[in-house]
Amino acid sequence: MAAGGNLKLLGTRHSMFTQRVVWALKLKGIEYEFIEEDLVNKSSLLIALNPVHKKVPILVHGGKPIIDSKIILEYIDETWKERPLFPQHSPERAYVRFWAAFIDDKLMEASKKAFASTGDDQVKAIELTVEALQLLEEELRGKKFFGGDQEIGFLDIVAGWIAYWLQFIEEIGGFKVMDSTRFPCLDLWTKNFLQVPSIEQNLPPPDELRNVFSAIRMAMCPK
Amino acid sequence: MAAGGNLKLLGTRHSMFTQRVVWALKLKGIEYEFIEEDLVNKSSLLIALNPVHKKVPILVHGGKPIIDSKIILEYIDETWKERPLFPQHSPERAYVRFWAAFIDDKLMEASKKAFASTGDDQVKAIELTVEALQLLEEELRGKKFFGGDQEIGFLDIVAGWIAYWLQFIEEIGGFKVMDSTRFPCLDLWTKNFLQVPSIEQNLPPPDELRNVFSAIRMAMCPK
Repeated sequence: MAAGGNLKLLGTRHSMFTQRVVWALKLKGIEYEFIEEDLVNKSSLLIALNPVHKKVPILVHGGKPIIDSKIILEYIDETWKERPLFPQHSPERAYVRFWAAFIDDKLMEASKKAFASTGDDQVKAIELTVEALQLLEEELRGKKFFGGDQEIGFLDIVAGWIAYWLQFIEEIGGFKVMDSTRFPCLDLWTKNFLQVPSIEQNLPPPDELRNVFSAIRMAMCPK
Repeated sequence: MAAGGNLKLLGTRHSMFTQRVVWALKLKGIEYEFIEEDLVNKSSLLIALNPVHKKVPILVHGGKPIIDSKIILEYIDETWKERPLFPQHSPERAYVRFWAAFIDDKLMEASKKAFASTGDDQVKAIELTVEALQLLEEELRGKKFFGGDQEIGFLDIVAGWIAYWLQFIEEIGGFKVMDSTRFPCLDLWTKNFLQVPSIEQNLPPPDELRNVFSAIRMAMCPK
């Protein structure tokens, strides 16, 4: 294990954003202290470190907070050079940043809407989710990982929630978008991604995710 | 002028996102060909280069498209090292990425809502815009530029629309948020930013912006 040097991670175990950071640190073998946050009763430390958004994950390195999961991944990769997560060349770096933004801004937004709605609104959001997945499917064609054939990288980590969280989002939200016939490349990627030891050993328990998503769904669609 | 090497920029002169890229290229003294796009009748080239979002700006370097203004700025800074736009050290890089995301995701979203609404919705959006500006004001305190005291950088470029476009957004949207008494640091930054030659010489004409924003406002709030 490489010493992180006074490195703390504030997060919640069930959060797909927190887990991105955990995976990156594990892949690089960096030691850190994990501080589990209760988002219903946010700690004064959390609010002091991220007064603008009051959200996790927050990586605290030498007392300084780094905020936003994608920005934290860039920071980690710039700071600890072993086992790079980003491609070396600028065009490929722009490529993974583009698709990472797509995953967060288009796919995640659409699937969040599908999860938090009913009726026609849900049908429309499901369509948008499928369209976004279709574009990702095409990007994956011919590759084992988004990061290339050898090993996972930044884009796989950002996409990681599709491989694990999405099934619970579907289950509790009462819809189905992932399908191995429709998305064979994403299906194979999911299997390969979840076999990577740093990923496999760092996933929240299914029942915990079911509880969290049930509570959110109940709050958003009460009946 | 440094040779860009088969460098094209697809954009529209009135777009604050396109102009970010223009400013970066001008600051670095990189030669490029500008292709003005008509967003009402998008060219087949635009759609071929950015089939996912069908938006500008698109930087085409050696035939390959780079998409999304902030990602293009990172690409430009990684590819042409003269006159760096990003800070050298990782914590400062994380800092400017954080605030750039804040400007686009919070401040711009709030001011877009204020522009495209009326009545109570507009009042609420104006409040959110002012709150976001207040946070930026505090970040600027004691600095000449977001990029430090010497010269403008990535974060100033991303914030650039506040210095110029915002006045037309306010005028056509029928609201007022910027105010030198309330935001003295942002007001001084605006003056300093607009005096930088690469910025001053690359601003769209006021009447063009008025026409564009009037058309958008009319479409969104017909009466």
